[in-house]
Amino acid sequence: MARTQGSHSDITGPRIRAAALRLFARHGFAAVSMRQIAGEVGVQAGALYNYTPDKQSLLFELMRDHLQDLLAAAPKAAPGDTPLARLEAFTRFHIRFNTERPEEVFIAYMELRNLAPENFREIEALRTAYEGRLQRILRDGVEAGDFRVCDPQIAAYAVIAMLTGVNTWFRQGGRLSLDEVETLYWDMVRKSVAS
Amino acid sequence: MARTQGSHSDITGPRIRAAALRLFARHGFAAVSMRQIAGEVGVQAGALYNYTPDKQSLLFELMRDHLQDLLAAAPKAAPGDTPLARLEAFTRFHIRFNTERPEEVFIAYMELRNLAPENFREIEALRTAYEGRLQRILRDGVEAGDFRVCDPQIAAYAVIAMLTGVNTWFRQGGRLSLDEVETLYWDMVRKSVAS
Repeated sequence: MARTQGSHSDITGPRIRAAALRLFARHGFAAVSMRQIAGEVGVQAGALYNYTPDKQSLLFELMRDHLQDLLAAAPKAAPGDTPLARLEAFTRFHIRFNTERPEEVFIAYMELRNLAPENFREIEALRTAYEGRLQRILRDGVEAGDFRVCDPQIAAYAVIAMLTGVNTWFRQGGRLSLDEVETLYWDMVRKSVAS
Repeated sequence: MARTQGSHSDITGPRIRAAALRLFARHGFAAVSMRQIAGEVGVQAGALYNYTPDKQSLLFELMRDHLQDLLAAAPKAAPGDTPLARLEAFTRFHIRFNTERPEEVFIAYMELRNLAPENFREIEALRTAYEGRLQRILRDGVEAGDFRVCDPQIAAYAVIAMLTGVNTWFRQGGRLSLDEVETLYWDMVRKSVAS
């Protein structure tokens, strides 16, 4: 016989994660209690533990899912794509993906300090895999003679930091459309690795 | 007659700010109590209020002092300095200044959400003044025909985000010296605004 909460878990689980994301982004992980998360969802605090073992798991899952989604959505190179075309696709993708998820991005950077060591290692590995995609593009461009990059690892850090920075100032309905922003950043990224 | 705490205020005030900085950076502003700050300093919670009216003032003063120090320390252009020389000085300065103050930088970005509105406006004005220094360099370089920058405001955001990103990965004693890091970033910044 199915347990009672089973019939609700499909919607309650995502609602708990959404509430945790909102509260962590607003107040910081350490300041938020399981009781507050339950209150935001409208369930008893005890009921939360049917869905998640603890607050640390909620944080870890939010960060892991964000990075797994990022890796799954990142553009794949088609045969014949030049490193330049791949770099442009990466640049535009990174800006679009991250500006659509300001709270996830904020948490992914801010709350690394609050991850348990084994969770930190897993999140680091996902982040490194994503940075590796950009490093691959940069190395291929250097080999092809299209780019001049002294240190592809550092160049990848630099480009990703520049692009993620859009989140700190971009607002929909502001002076520039997202497409205009992408084009401005692409101009700078392209030149920054030029030979 | 001097009040009793007067004789200690010169050292206790800075110790309180240092403890608040450490605790805010570690746990986040919202999770830290005045009692914890007092405990870290080794004074009674009540004694804290001789030095600061509340936790909000501590946060504001940490962020304001950091940005005022940044503005005071930023390189001034000497007559005859080219925009390129000024951009290199800015790039190297920004990396050095920020990597020496990881906790201040972390707080300055992370805890904007916790500033009272009037404090937020003052911090925003200081940050805008700093960004304005870089915008001035970029505009001068465009006028001189040395740079090609489509939108100096956005280019300043992009360069500052790229440079501040060094804080997320740089460690003293790692693969690269800070001087090597500065040189790698300068190569990218220089090219990103090239004509």
